Amino acid sequence: MTDLTTAERIRGLIRDVPDFPKPGIVFKDLCPVWGSGDAMAELAVAMSAPYDPAGVHALVGIESRGFLVGTAMSMKMGKGLVLVRKKGKLPGTVVSRSYDLEYGQDTLEVQANALRPGMKVVMVDDLLATGGTMKAAMALVESQGAEIIGVSFVVELGFLEGRKALGDTTCYSLVRY
Amino acid sequence: MTDLTTAERIRGLIRDVPDFPKPGIVFKDLCPVWGSGDAMAELAVAMSAPYDPAGVHALVGIESRGFLVGTAMSMKMGKGLVLVRKKGKLPGTVVSRSYDLEYGQDTLEVQANALRPGMKVVMVDDLLATGGTMKAAMALVESQGAEIIGVSFVVELGFLEGRKALGDTTCYSLVRY
Repeated sequence: MTDLTTAERIRGLIRDVPDFPKPGIVFKDLCPVWGSGDAMAELAVAMSAPYDPAGVHALVGIESRGFLVGTAMSMKMGKGLVLVRKKGKLPGTVVSRSYDLEYGQDTLEVQANALRPGMKVVMVDDLLATGGTMKAAMALVESQGAEIIGVSFVVELGFLEGRKALGDTTCYSLVRY
Repeated sequence: MTDLTTAERIRGLIRDVPDFPKPGIVFKDLCPVWGSGDAMAELAVAMSAPYDPAGVHALVGIESRGFLVGTAMSMKMGKGLVLVRKKGKLPGTVVSRSYDLEYGQDTLEVQANALRPGMKVVMVDDLLATGGTMKAAMALVESQGAEIIGVSFVVELGFLEGRKALGDTTCYSLVRY
């Protein structure tokens, strides 16, 4: 390998895709990261590093790219992954939270028995943009009494100031734009 | 631990949820598996065991629970994960394949540059039911010249005879019903 840092190597794999999913948006494509076994191993180490596994009961991953990062951190830290999904995808009794999008609303759900009061969790997704989805996911998790000890992203679009939506919770991102 | 096998331990975690996603279906809920760090570590070992990593270039995971299993195997085998997603989710140039559902059609996509002729891949999803989705995903992958050396599931609903849809490709499942 080279003497690049993990963050630099991951950044080097990310592709800009203009006008996706709609005109004017430059999408950060992380598929080359998921597609590299070496990159995923490094990513799991780097993204788990801020946390002491002894103080974490579970990770919480947001559908569906958060499942990729969440599983990688889960495997590294030896902790389970709780899924936050779009409405109607999770079986059994769920709790829901709706949030506003640019146009309309969306709803996130978590299984009612997945979290317990006092559980310490780390929230995980691939990318922090405006933070709307993560803010709603955090409120959902906190409504179950779980304590969020950190929020982790592979990529942060700093110019969108999504951190402001996340309040005082400690936020980590591997690659910033 | 006990002297249960990995398959027995995983089976013990799976929950039956009646009438999901619609009346008459008994859904196999694997959330307790994803939610256990120990189970995921064991699952990754057991599901990777049939394959020699030296003969595998990549794993291919099907949205979205296939991303959980696919990442776990990816981390264990040190191989990248190629995503097969529903229509419109993957950025850049994609290749598509539509397939028939009970009512209507669905379309799967893969990035055009994700696979190359001669690449040896393992297809991964959480559950084999009738095999329709996996059959379409396999055709998509093979249309790019990749060679499928095996197909792996956590759960197989044997009574639905989904293996028949997968042709001669070697198929592994950890837990069978």
